[in-house]
Amino acid sequence: MGTTQLETVPEPKYWHLKTVLSEALDTDFAVGEILPNERDLAARFGVARATLRQALEQLELEGRLQRRRGVGTTVAPPRVGVDVSASRSDWPGADQHAWQPTECTVAVPPAAVAAHLGTEPDERTHVVRRVRKGHDQPVAAELLYVPAASVPALPAIDAPSGPALARGVLRELARLEPEGQDRAVELGSAGAVDAKELDRLPGAPVLVVTTRYFAGGRTAAVSVATYRADTCRLTFGAQGDLEISHEEQRRAS
Amino acid sequence: MGTTQLETVPEPKYWHLKTVLSEALDTDFAVGEILPNERDLAARFGVARATLRQALEQLELEGRLQRRRGVGTTVAPPRVGVDVSASRSDWPGADQHAWQPTECTVAVPPAAVAAHLGTEPDERTHVVRRVRKGHDQPVAAELLYVPAASVPALPAIDAPSGPALARGVLRELARLEPEGQDRAVELGSAGAVDAKELDRLPGAPVLVVTTRYFAGGRTAAVSVATYRADTCRLTFGAQGDLEISHEEQRRAS
Repeated sequence: MGTTQLETVPEPKYWHLKTVLSEALDTDFAVGEILPNERDLAARFGVARATLRQALEQLELEGRLQRRRGVGTTVAPPRVGVDVSASRSDWPGADQHAWQPTECTVAVPPAAVAAHLGTEPDERTHVVRRVRKGHDQPVAAELLYVPAASVPALPAIDAPSGPALARGVLRELARLEPEGQDRAVELGSAGAVDAKELDRLPGAPVLVVTTRYFAGGRTAAVSVATYRADTCRLTFGAQGDLEISHEEQRRAS
Repeated sequence: MGTTQLETVPEPKYWHLKTVLSEALDTDFAVGEILPNERDLAARFGVARATLRQALEQLELEGRLQRRRGVGTTVAPPRVGVDVSASRSDWPGADQHAWQPTECTVAVPPAAVAAHLGTEPDERTHVVRRVRKGHDQPVAAELLYVPAASVPALPAIDAPSGPALARGVLRELARLEPEGQDRAVELGSAGAVDAKELDRLPGAPVLVVTTRYFAGGRTAAVSVATYRADTCRLTFGAQGDLEISHEEQRRAS
């Protein structure tokens, strides 16, 4: 393994190193392969260890590397596309095999959620906790806030709690006539409970998807879902038009 | 300013501190206000400075705090929603006042982009650089990859470069009949050029939006846009249904 000296460039040194490392990952390493230790890597590329560490952090942020305790730094598989398009079939309570309800409590939602729902600042709502799986891995942890007004047929607040209540809330939500939904995506950090469900450390960067579900001329429910940012890319299908698959494009060209 | 001792909780200490700090930001501080220095803050909450720093990093990730050189740590304004819905009006080259073309080069796109476009690995495409502004701030920096096949009427590869070529490519793209588009959102880090255009440091976390534009039975162009993750939340409108605005919901409820 020879020494690859970096040319002098106007970019920060770690940034250029990141680009060089990224190319090396493509050509010299396989997915899942453990990287040499920091000292060897720093020597190979002729940089200080601090510079190397910055470059490795960038590559982790971009999903190229995974750092796992007890294993070391490995080459990450490509991120998996997770469909988060808004569609009628995605209405909570409809057949959503990807989402598993795990818990339901009754609590005051965060101020931002209450503003979306139009509930009073101290008004409690049902809070259904769900986990979304993909390829047998947890990809998202969700809190679904459902005001009592959206599920009037449900027994009052002293109903059974836990998974039974979660199923009851979802069953009632599914009876509403969907009028649409919207989504917002932003950067966040994993809370302690989410982190545990997602097999991440608390504070890890996550993609937070907030969805408003509209029915009966109002916001019937608000979902705040935390997606793993290291392994997921969120996909939104073509809107109003036929989506052309990659295979179809290849055939057409 | 008294000392607020934290209760003992099973969560990591910095995580609980983050929650407490977050509430303090809501009640005790105004947007733009400079936070006390780390020593004073650590004393106020009865925590070690390392714990405080971790909590501050989390709050920065969540967009609650901004760290600016020469100013210190300030309370961030709420993130601004930036509409990234796929729609016909968003076709590149159509009237997109938010996007300003700044440059155009001819280069081999990254492998992932070439795969989307169905171009040969060493095939060069037009690369239009654009900046998206919102509220007079740059919110996104974009590279738009356009193969020669999508703009056949454009003079060959030795056409004028720079903004003139960018406008030429966009004008030709606008003549295509759009057949749809799709989007993916993922976490990334700002490259040196993007960082400069976005007024961020290289390596800052960003939201990378990759869009495929379909026309003529193929992928006519691929856009890779880097959005500021600290100030932006990406919004996707209601699909196939009427979007209900917040005001309308309030009136209806």
